Amino acid sequence: MKSFFDSPDPRALDLLPAGFRFASAACGLKKAGQPDLGLITCEEDAVAAAGFTTNRVKAAPVLVSRDHLRASGGRARAVIANSGNANCATGHAGLSASRATAAAVGRAISCKAEHVLVCSTGIIGVALDHEKILGRVPALVKDQADSAGAFAAFAGAIMTTDTRPKWSAATCQIGGKEVRLAGCAKGAGMIHPQLATMLAFVVSDVTVSPPLAQRALERVAERTFNAITVDGDTSTNDTLILLTNGTSGAPAIRSAGIDYRSFFDGLERLCRDLACAMVADGEGATRVAEIEVRGAASDAMAAQVARTVASSPLVKTALAGADPNWGRILAAAGRVAWPKSPNFDFGKAEIQLGGITVCRRGQAQAFDESAVHQKMLEQYVSIVLDLKRGRGRGTAWACDLTEDYVRLNKAYRS
Amino acid sequence: MKSFFDSPDPRALDLLPAGFRFASAACGLKKAGQPDLGLITCEEDAVAAAGFTTNRVKAAPVLVSRDHLRASGGRARAVIANSGNANCATGHAGLSASRATAAAVGRAISCKAEHVLVCSTGIIGVALDHEKILGRVPALVKDQADSAGAFAAFAGAIMTTDTRPKWSAATCQIGGKEVRLAGCAKGAGMIHPQLATMLAFVVSDVTVSPPLAQRALERVAERTFNAITVDGDTSTNDTLILLTNGTSGAPAIRSAGIDYRSFFDGLERLCRDLACAMVADGEGATRVAEIEVRGAASDAMAAQVARTVASSPLVKTALAGADPNWGRILAAAGRVAWPKSPNFDFGKAEIQLGGITVCRRGQAQAFDESAVHQKMLEQYVSIVLDLKRGRGRGTAWACDLTEDYVRLNKAYRS
Repeated sequence: MKSFFDSPDPRALDLLPAGFRFASAACGLKKAGQPDLGLITCEEDAVAAAGFTTNRVKAAPVLVSRDHLRASGGRARAVIANSGNANCATGHAGLSASRATAAAVGRAISCKAEHVLVCSTGIIGVALDHEKILGRVPALVKDQADSAGAFAAFAGAIMTTDTRPKWSAATCQIGGKEVRLAGCAKGAGMIHPQLATMLAFVVSDVTVSPPLAQRALERVAERTFNAITVDGDTSTNDTLILLTNGTSGAPAIRSAGIDYRSFFDGLERLCRDLACAMVADGEGATRVAEIEVRGAASDAMAAQVARTVASSPLVKTALAGADPNWGRILAAAGRVAWPKSPNFDFGKAEIQLGGITVCRRGQAQAFDESAVHQKMLEQYVSIVLDLKRGRGRGTAWACDLTEDYVRLNKAYRS
Repeated sequence: MKSFFDSPDPRALDLLPAGFRFASAACGLKKAGQPDLGLITCEEDAVAAAGFTTNRVKAAPVLVSRDHLRASGGRARAVIANSGNANCATGHAGLSASRATAAAVGRAISCKAEHVLVCSTGIIGVALDHEKILGRVPALVKDQADSAGAFAAFAGAIMTTDTRPKWSAATCQIGGKEVRLAGCAKGAGMIHPQLATMLAFVVSDVTVSPPLAQRALERVAERTFNAITVDGDTSTNDTLILLTNGTSGAPAIRSAGIDYRSFFDGLERLCRDLACAMVADGEGATRVAEIEVRGAASDAMAAQVARTVASSPLVKTALAGADPNWGRILAAAGRVAWPKSPNFDFGKAEIQLGGITVCRRGQAQAFDESAVHQKMLEQYVSIVLDLKRGRGRGTAWACDLTEDYVRLNKAYRS
C-alpha cells in the first residue's frame, strides 16, 4: 500500500494531462495569510462531471455549480475554489458572492459565467468577503501554469485542517493510447461523504461524453469517496469535479464497453488514492483501518456493514489504542438496519485483525494478543469481517479517533 | 433541572415501593474486586415488562430473558444482573451460563427459572465464568433487604465505566392513591439506545396488566432512553425492565384512560431522570446538551433531527469547547434522511444556544459571543433548532465528546 501518511510524491504529477492550467494565491480569507484561493482552467471547454453533497443544507457554491453544470450541459472552462470560508448558511448574499465569483472568472478568461464552477470550504455561517476573491482573479489568471508545481500549489490552496496536500495520478489505455488522470482533494473533518466528499478535482485528457463521464464518476465515488469516514458528519460543501478535455488523442469512449471499463478502472484507482489520503490525513488520525466485509447477502449489504463498522467511535478509539477489541466490531455490525430475516445471526461470523483470526463462529478464538497488538500498531490495519452468509463484499476506510481529533474540534470556530 | 452530575440523592429512595428486596456482592468478575453482582426479588410474582436491544448481535442474557418473559406471560419474581462481563458473542456456552444463573436463582427463592430475568454488562467476547455467580447466589438471597441502602448498593453493583450510581423515583396518583416508582440504570459507553439502553430497572407498586405495562414502557423508552446518545454505538446488552407488584393498593389500570396517563407520566419522569443521569455520566462527559427541535412536519421527524444533532461528533466537540459553532448544528440536521420534498430547505431555520438566537432565517445573526460562550460553559446547555415548517417537536440529550472519552476507550480491553 502507498503511504498516504506522507506528502504525495511530486513525480506523480509528471503524468499531468495537457491542456489544463493551475494557479493559486493567498487572498486574505485565512487569517494567517496562507494560500486560500485556487484556479483550474482548460484551454477549451472540457467535459465536466460532478458529484455534490447530499446534505440538505447545501452551501451557495454547491447550488451555483449545480446550476451552471445544468445550464452548460456538462461542460466547463474553469473551477475556482477558496478555503477559509464555506459560504454556507449565508443566504442570498452567499449566492450572489458565488455567482459574482464565477462571473469575474468568466470575464477574465473570456467564457460564460455558466462555464465556471465554484467551490468553497471552511467555516459555516460566516459571510464570505468575496471582494477579496474578486480582487485576486486577474492575478490568478495571469499566473496560470500547466506545471506540476502549479498543480501542487493548487492542492495546497484548498486545504483547511489538512496537514498536507493530497494528489495522485493514474493512466489507462484506450484504443492503444495512454490516457492520463490527475486529481487532488482536501479533507480533513466533517468527512462522511454521501455522494462525494469535501473537495476533490480530477483532470483527464480522455474523450468521453458528458453522460458517460457523469456515470463513471458517480459509480467510482460510490466505491471510493463514499466509502471513507473520518467522523460521521457529512459536509455541506462536498464537491467532486472531473474535467476532461480529450487532448490524449485516444479514441472517444462512446459506450460502456472495454474502453469505458479501462477508464473506469483508472478513475477508480485515482479516486481510491485520494480517498485513502483523505482518511490518513483525517483530523487527529494516526492510523487507517481498511474494513473489508465478506460473505454478506449482497455487495450493498456488505458495504453498509463496512461503513457502519468504520463509523463506530468505539472501533475507532480501539484502533487508536491498537487494542484488539473485536467485540466492538461485531457490536457495530449488529446495529446496521438488517433486513428482517429471522434466520440471520452472527453465529458463523469470523473476524481477522491484521490477518490473524480473533473470532470464529461468532465467538472468541484464542489468539496471540501481542502479535495482534503489534499488527495494530502499524499505520495500516486490515480488518476482515466474514459473515459466511453469501457472496457480497464491500470495503470501507476509517482513521482512528484520537484525543487530537477532540482537541482540534473543541475550538475550531473561536 | 436536577443536577445529574452529582451522585443521586439517597432521600429519593424513601419512595421505594413495598414488596421488593435488593442485594449485591462482589463475586470476582471485576478484577479489582468491586461489586459486580446484583439481585432484585419480589415477594410474589410481579408483572414484568421489558425492552431489549435492537442490535442484531444480542447477548445471551438478552435472549434468555426474552424467552423467559414469553414463557411466563409477562411475569417475573427476580432479576439477577452482573457487571464485568457482557456474556455476548460467547456461543452456546454463554446461553448455558445465563440459563444456569436463572435456574440457580429460581432454586434459591423457590420459583421457576422462567420467572427469573438475567442481565449482563461489560466486555464482549470473553467467556463468562458463571461459577463465580452461582457460588454467590445463596449469600445474595440471604442478604436481601427492602431498604434504600440495599437498592443503592444494587445500583452500584451494575456499574462499568460509570463514575457514580444512577437512580431516581417518582409518584403518581391512581384513583386517589399514591403509586410509587423507583428505578436505577447504568451507562456509560456504547450508548445510543434503540429500544432500551444498557441496563435500567424500574420497580413499582402499581396494579397493571402485562400488555398495558409493556405498552407504557415501550412508549416511555422511545421518549427517554431512546432519545439519548453518548457515542452513537448501540449496545448488545441493552435491557430495560419494569417490575410492578400492586402493593400500593391503588385500583388496577385496565385501559388507556386517565389512570394509565397518570402512570405513564410518572414512568416518563422517572425514565427521563435516569436517561439524563446516564448522559451526564457518559464516558468523559463534562456537560449535557438538551437539543430541542421545533417546527418540523411531525414529531417523528423532529425527534430524528434532534437525535442526529445529538450524535454529531462535531457538535459534541464544540460543546466540549463551549464553542458556539451553530453551523455544525445546521450541517448535522441537514444530513438526516429528509423526505424528498423539493420545497424544503433551511431558509427559515432559527437556532438558539443557551436561549440566545445565533442563527435566523438559516443564516448568521449577530450575537454576543462571550455571553453565549458563558452559557455554554454551564453543565446544561439548551440548544433549540426551530425549522419553522410545522408543529412537530422532539428532544434529545447528548453529552460532550472530550479527550477523556478517547482516553477511556483506547485501551478498555487491554
